[in-house]
Amino acid sequence: MEIKNYGEDQLIEYIQQRFLTPPPLVGMGDDCAVIPNGNQALLVTTDSLVEGIHFIKSLISPENLGYKTLAVNISDIVAMGGIPNYAVLAMALPGNIDSDWFERFIQGVKSACNQFNIALLGGDTVGSKGDLFFNVTMIGSAAMDKIKYRNTAKPGDVVCVTGFLGDSSAGLQALIDNIEPSSFSIKCIQQHLHPQIDPQHGLWLGAHEGVHAMIDLSDGLDKDLKRILLSSKCGATIELSQIPISAALKETCLHQHWDPLKFALFGGEDYRLLLTISQNKLLQIQNGFRKAFDSELYVVGIINDSPMGHIRYFREGNPIQFEYSGYKHFDRESI
Amino acid sequence: MEIKNYGEDQLIEYIQQRFLTPPPLVGMGDDCAVIPNGNQALLVTTDSLVEGIHFIKSLISPENLGYKTLAVNISDIVAMGGIPNYAVLAMALPGNIDSDWFERFIQGVKSACNQFNIALLGGDTVGSKGDLFFNVTMIGSAAMDKIKYRNTAKPGDVVCVTGFLGDSSAGLQALIDNIEPSSFSIKCIQQHLHPQIDPQHGLWLGAHEGVHAMIDLSDGLDKDLKRILLSSKCGATIELSQIPISAALKETCLHQHWDPLKFALFGGEDYRLLLTISQNKLLQIQNGFRKAFDSELYVVGIINDSPMGHIRYFREGNPIQFEYSGYKHFDRESI
Repeated sequence: MEIKNYGEDQLIEYIQQRFLTPPPLVGMGDDCAVIPNGNQALLVTTDSLVEGIHFIKSLISPENLGYKTLAVNISDIVAMGGIPNYAVLAMALPGNIDSDWFERFIQGVKSACNQFNIALLGGDTVGSKGDLFFNVTMIGSAAMDKIKYRNTAKPGDVVCVTGFLGDSSAGLQALIDNIEPSSFSIKCIQQHLHPQIDPQHGLWLGAHEGVHAMIDLSDGLDKDLKRILLSSKCGATIELSQIPISAALKETCLHQHWDPLKFALFGGEDYRLLLTISQNKLLQIQNGFRKAFDSELYVVGIINDSPMGHIRYFREGNPIQFEYSGYKHFDRESI
Repeated sequence: MEIKNYGEDQLIEYIQQRFLTPPPLVGMGDDCAVIPNGNQALLVTTDSLVEGIHFIKSLISPENLGYKTLAVNISDIVAMGGIPNYAVLAMALPGNIDSDWFERFIQGVKSACNQFNIALLGGDTVGSKGDLFFNVTMIGSAAMDKIKYRNTAKPGDVVCVTGFLGDSSAGLQALIDNIEPSSFSIKCIQQHLHPQIDPQHGLWLGAHEGVHAMIDLSDGLDKDLKRILLSSKCGATIELSQIPISAALKETCLHQHWDPLKFALFGGEDYRLLLTISQNKLLQIQNGFRKAFDSELYVVGIINDSPMGHIRYFREGNPIQFEYSGYKHFDRESI
């Protein structure tokens, strides 16, 4: 059988079953691995960007690509409530890459390292016969009792996100379709090319016991929420009228006759946080978050005890079925 | 200008100059990065294996490839005097990879993890349009005062290696040329496909102050010694009659009319240790090593104060010039 018949999560599960992690280590199945050291812990994560799968070279500047290579890993550390500290960068480069392109890529890496105070400690530079391949492994740190996991959601928790959803994937669609640019579509494109990540959000939320489960939104609300639900052995209902949609996404979709929810639920690469909060702590945490960041925690649903991993969607109380839950861009999810 | 005009070391130097590592961290320019934590330190290294560059899929079993993906990283930790502890594995897999091949690859990874007591903590599994790409980042540990670096060789030190050189690259040549197998060539091929690494060697040598500089032999004695010399700002002489050549390499070369020294000096993938030892500690360390491991430390040359990075080769005292110092297999060094 060819491996494309497996999904990414199935492949990870296959490996996970063969590499049982001895406690107190936390291994596969969350955004980061956790290596405890007394009251503190190291967080370790690794993420790759492959040409033709995660990016199309002609559609992203080398500076943005370099920045994003770091950003997708920073997002994983932040989603566990940690601070990113160190990175190593592995690159496979075809020999015909222009040295100017390479230098601008490194400039983008440096810009992310400077912004987030990360030391790039090393790497590996090898040739490639075909495509560009980048991989970053990032090491972060957190207090053991502030780390948030995927498997700690509880029935009755509210489901929240830390910002607008869908802009990034709509921006990618705008790039691929080469649509006539507007001030709105440009904002979506910008979110795709240069994602905004705020490590303070994760750190602040990590410090609150009322926050139960947390994950970063890299593959879309639908898929990432299912990861929390499967880990936590529960289900959820989502109220579609509560999904935060930016004016940029709304207007872009209006002009293109696109459905904004397609991007918000199934698009991916939002790099916002998806979390569950104990109901009796919600108001306090929402108010505190607003005060700390002048930014909203959007409530989008409720965790329940319905069958494991199942999300039921409602619009103003009426159940909704989606046709396109399998939405994919490029072949990101093809294995 | 195309990037293939740079060498790998030039590219690393370019990046290194732009990412100055604040002490006490040790960043780029050694086998591992060093993150001090009191008297202890974390060692971090990353190494990639790319199809068509580092391996040809039809010439190596998936089990051996999985094992080797870990082994090349273990070798870097060992070369700093550390113990490997944790690994994360990133894979880019074309969708048409057979699931049986993949399962056997994972079995090879597991076999290395079991043998060296390494916890595989996580990874990233993504699609690839073309070639297979594997990257491992490994985290090890060492006592701060036992770590060995590249930049600590001193004029007068003797240059030693921990085992036979050249078997692996001759084994690769035998595979590529599809030569008629003999018991000798099979031993070389086995060393290429399933390198022998002894972490105790590095740990033992790290504990000896008389050992000054150390590196693992991944790109051949000539290239890896030059890395020590450039870092340590000195030169070396190598006596060719002292290079340890196995019977397997000697006999294979005899039959194929190959020059064993071509493989021993320029071949790469030996994964032995190359080190420099204070002359007045040599005998004690050699005897101790023999007693501990029933294995030899082979003296092959002397560090001197000749121009930076320069190796002079002698055979029984007579200077020798090589024609093929640029020996490459595949395109490993093409960028």
